[in-house]
Formats: sequence, C-alpha cells, structure tokens
Amino acid sequence: MMTDQDILEKASALIARCKAKGVMIATAESCTGGLITGSLTGVDGSSSVVDCGFVTYSNEAKRDLLGVGEDLLAEFGAVSEPVARAMSEGALKRAPNATIAVSVTGIAGPGGGTDTKPVGLVHFGCSAKDHATITTHEVFPGDRHAVRKATVLRAFSLIDEMLG
Amino acid sequence: MMTDQDILEKASALIARCKAKGVMIATAESCTGGLITGSLTGVDGSSSVVDCGFVTYSNEAKRDLLGVGEDLLAEFGAVSEPVARAMSEGALKRAPNATIAVSVTGIAGPGGGTDTKPVGLVHFGCSAKDHATITTHEVFPGDRHAVRKATVLRAFSLIDEMLG
Repeated sequence: MMTDQDILEKASALIARCKAKGVMIATAESCTGGLITGSLTGVDGSSSVVDCGFVTYSNEAKRDLLGVGEDLLAEFGAVSEPVARAMSEGALKRAPNATIAVSVTGIAGPGGGTDTKPVGLVHFGCSAKDHATITTHEVFPGDRHAVRKATVLRAFSLIDEMLG
Repeated sequence: MMTDQDILEKASALIARCKAKGVMIATAESCTGGLITGSLTGVDGSSSVVDCGFVTYSNEAKRDLLGVGEDLLAEFGAVSEPVARAMSEGALKRAPNATIAVSVTGIAGPGGGTDTKPVGLVHFGCSAKDHATITTHEVFPGDRHAVRKATVLRAFSLIDEMLG
C-alpha cells in the first residue's frame, strides 16, 4: 500500500500543508495498525511534522497507552464514537510535541462484523489544541486491504478538515 | 509496500509462529514509522498476536513514550545501539500484554546521513520476558522506500531469532 501513488501524493500534500502551518501530528491507530503514520513518514522531510503514533491494537493498549476508559470500552465497544474520541484526545494529551491528533478504530474484516457493526465500519476522531474534537464514521466496502487503505485516506482528509 | 507479496507472506508466517507459541508482540518504530506493525496487522487474525506499537519519530517521543534516557540520546544519538536497546526494553515494559518487543531506529534518507552514520544505517533491538536483549545493525542499500522495506523484513527475522 505504501507504494500506491494516491497515498504517496496525498501524504506529501498533507505533510507540506502541516509544515506550512507549523502543525505536528500524532496518531492513534487501531484497525490500520500503523499505516497512517507509516504512510506519512514515507515522505522525505516528514520528521518536522510527525511527532509520534500509538498503535493500540488491544483494548488494554487503548486503556494504558491512551487512557481510554474501561467504562467506554465496556459500554460502547472498541469500535465506537466515544472510543474514537477518547483515542484522539488521549493521543494529543500524551504526545510530547503534537498539536493535532487523529484516531481510527474499526473492523477491517474479514471476521468481527455484526449486524450493528458491519465489516468496514470505522470510527474516526480528530483533536487539536484549542479546538473541539471532530468525530465521524464510515462504512467502507471491500476486503481487509481496501478497508485499511480507505481508512488511511479518510484520516488524511479529516486532518485536512481540521486544518481548515 | 503493504501489498508486496514477500512482506505479506513473511508477516503471515511470523504471526502463525507467534500464535503457536502464545507470544504477543509490541513494536517501537522510528524510521519505519509504523510499517512493522502495519504489515503484521495486514494478516487476518493478527489481533491475538499484536498488542501495540509505539511510533516514536521525534526524540521527545522516544523519551516520553518509551523512557529512553536523555543522556543516551545526547551521548550516542537517536540512531545507535544503546537507543535501540532502550527502545525495545521500554516498549516491552510499557506494553500491557506483549511478551516480546522489537525496535528500529535508522536513517532512511535521502538526507540525514553522515560519515559515521550513513543513509541506510539501522539499529535494531529485540527484548523478551526472561531473555537478554538482542541488538544488531545493518546498512541497507537503496532509496528511502527500499531502506524502510528492508528494515521491516529484518525486524521480522529478528523476532524469529528471538523465538528460537
């Protein structure tokens, strides 16, 4: 995926835009497992924009690395708006330099889907200093690879929205 | 990169081997920026093996997220054996479930190289419960993409060595 031309181009554009605005990014990734940060750091010179990323695949990692409440995980499940929100807010708080943080938590498949939470459902959060957190969700079509790739691209566009 | 057949095959084999041994993985990534965990989680069913990852691109992230000492960063630099060791040991300590942790810190290029630390130099660490930490380093040829891909594959083989 990291050699996909559309990912590289969009990552480059986002890095340039963040650099121009003096923004530093943190990520909190579940279903993408590190691909958002992995894509951004494919861009030469990204070190002035990318601070850090938290790949929180297990629920315990969401709790310990990002401070996501056990109560949220128990009541809403890991793939939910409240958990996406807590992930981006936790990443922003715990990252040493970041001024913006994006989070993703979803069901990449092929297993794990339910009637109310189908394969392809991904919740997103985006937090920034002195801004209210944005959340959104999507249901992406396709296989595990397609869902993860679409999630990376949507995370990019969500950061772009937050940049205004 | 995530669609490269060799990466997918090696990630699948490693996940299967870890699953059979009851091992859970944490990562601490600098130059790969999340691609090691991103590759591992491309495998369906990887959630029983992948606990979490720390993408520590900035020095401050290495310090705050992994507990890498300021003294090590100042004396040896971020791309060094002592920092790779501190990164894998810090990841193992801070990951809630992991029993093995791998770290990478290197110079992916095209900039950042020096006479003593050329582009392509990557230091690796691997720590496991009740084992001494393993460290090694490589100088990989090629461009930024090639160096990052070779680093992912060497991290896989280092975990494999630690599994015995």
